[in-house]
Amino acid sequence: MSERKPRIAVDMDEVIADPLSKFISLYNRDYGIPLDLQILPGNEMYHHVPENIKMKLWDYINEKGFFRDLAVLPDSVEVLKQLQEKYDIFIVSAAMEFPNSLQDKYEWLAEHFPFIGWQNIIFCGHKIVNVDILIDDRIKNFVDFDGRKLLFSSPHNMLLTGYERVNNWKEVGEKLL
Amino acid sequence: MSERKPRIAVDMDEVIADPLSKFISLYNRDYGIPLDLQILPGNEMYHHVPENIKMKLWDYINEKGFFRDLAVLPDSVEVLKQLQEKYDIFIVSAAMEFPNSLQDKYEWLAEHFPFIGWQNIIFCGHKIVNVDILIDDRIKNFVDFDGRKLLFSSPHNMLLTGYERVNNWKEVGEKLL
Repeated sequence: MSERKPRIAVDMDEVIADPLSKFISLYNRDYGIPLDLQILPGNEMYHHVPENIKMKLWDYINEKGFFRDLAVLPDSVEVLKQLQEKYDIFIVSAAMEFPNSLQDKYEWLAEHFPFIGWQNIIFCGHKIVNVDILIDDRIKNFVDFDGRKLLFSSPHNMLLTGYERVNNWKEVGEKLL
Repeated sequence: MSERKPRIAVDMDEVIADPLSKFISLYNRDYGIPLDLQILPGNEMYHHVPENIKMKLWDYINEKGFFRDLAVLPDSVEVLKQLQEKYDIFIVSAAMEFPNSLQDKYEWLAEHFPFIGWQNIIFCGHKIVNVDILIDDRIKNFVDFDGRKLLFSSPHNMLLTGYERVNNWKEVGEKLL
């Protein structure tokens, strides 16, 4: 493995894809939750909807199509394209938790990140990947990982300290290019 | 990572699932290829059908449903159940090459290997998994892997030497239990 390019594993949801805006728009459509809802630091989306519709989140996320039309997070396409010259980029998503998402996520990646081939896409549960750098918004994925961990900012992780944090893709580019 | 159970990554096709019999039955149905066809050592399935229908293989494999009803290879369920007591078992399939297979493979695993949770299923391209043992029929998946490699016998790999070979799941059990 000595002469290979360094490898970066990149999470999907809340790192390159935006499920939060989709949740908000669905909650708005079905229950009138305001579209300008802000998720407070340390909170998950479900902390911001009334108790009786909290669990609706799981219906949304398990629905076929949920992941197919998520917005792409700013600058992720451009920065990943640049990083690809220097690194071997893998997309690593814990998609297996939501089996209906598998095809959607595959097609979403093919549409927005066509420069990342199927060889470099990994849908899994535990992220037991042999890479050098992991960019993720969930610290549970860092627990068993020995490489460099970049915590990608998302509302739910904003109170966490002690991690190397990146707030957006421009910052990822500054650190890794 | 020091106190974890050792991890085994197990390939799907030609290791726990039997696509070859399915190919033969489809070729039989469509072109009268005999059902008792034997694949000679070193050969792939496509070496055993006439030139003009060789590529039909790719149509079969890309069809939704192809992977959903494959036969389970003998003793794989029982031995993996036993191995699970001592090892952390991951199913690692290069399913990403055939996006239509993702849901089928997920459902097939849920049906036949319900004791393996979604956390331990990995659909990928390159198998860059951080495990201790890899059981696979394709040596290309061994190239970049530092752990113990068990070559699971399948017609196409029978001429290869220099690998630790297992001919069936009973032998896997004898080696690893």
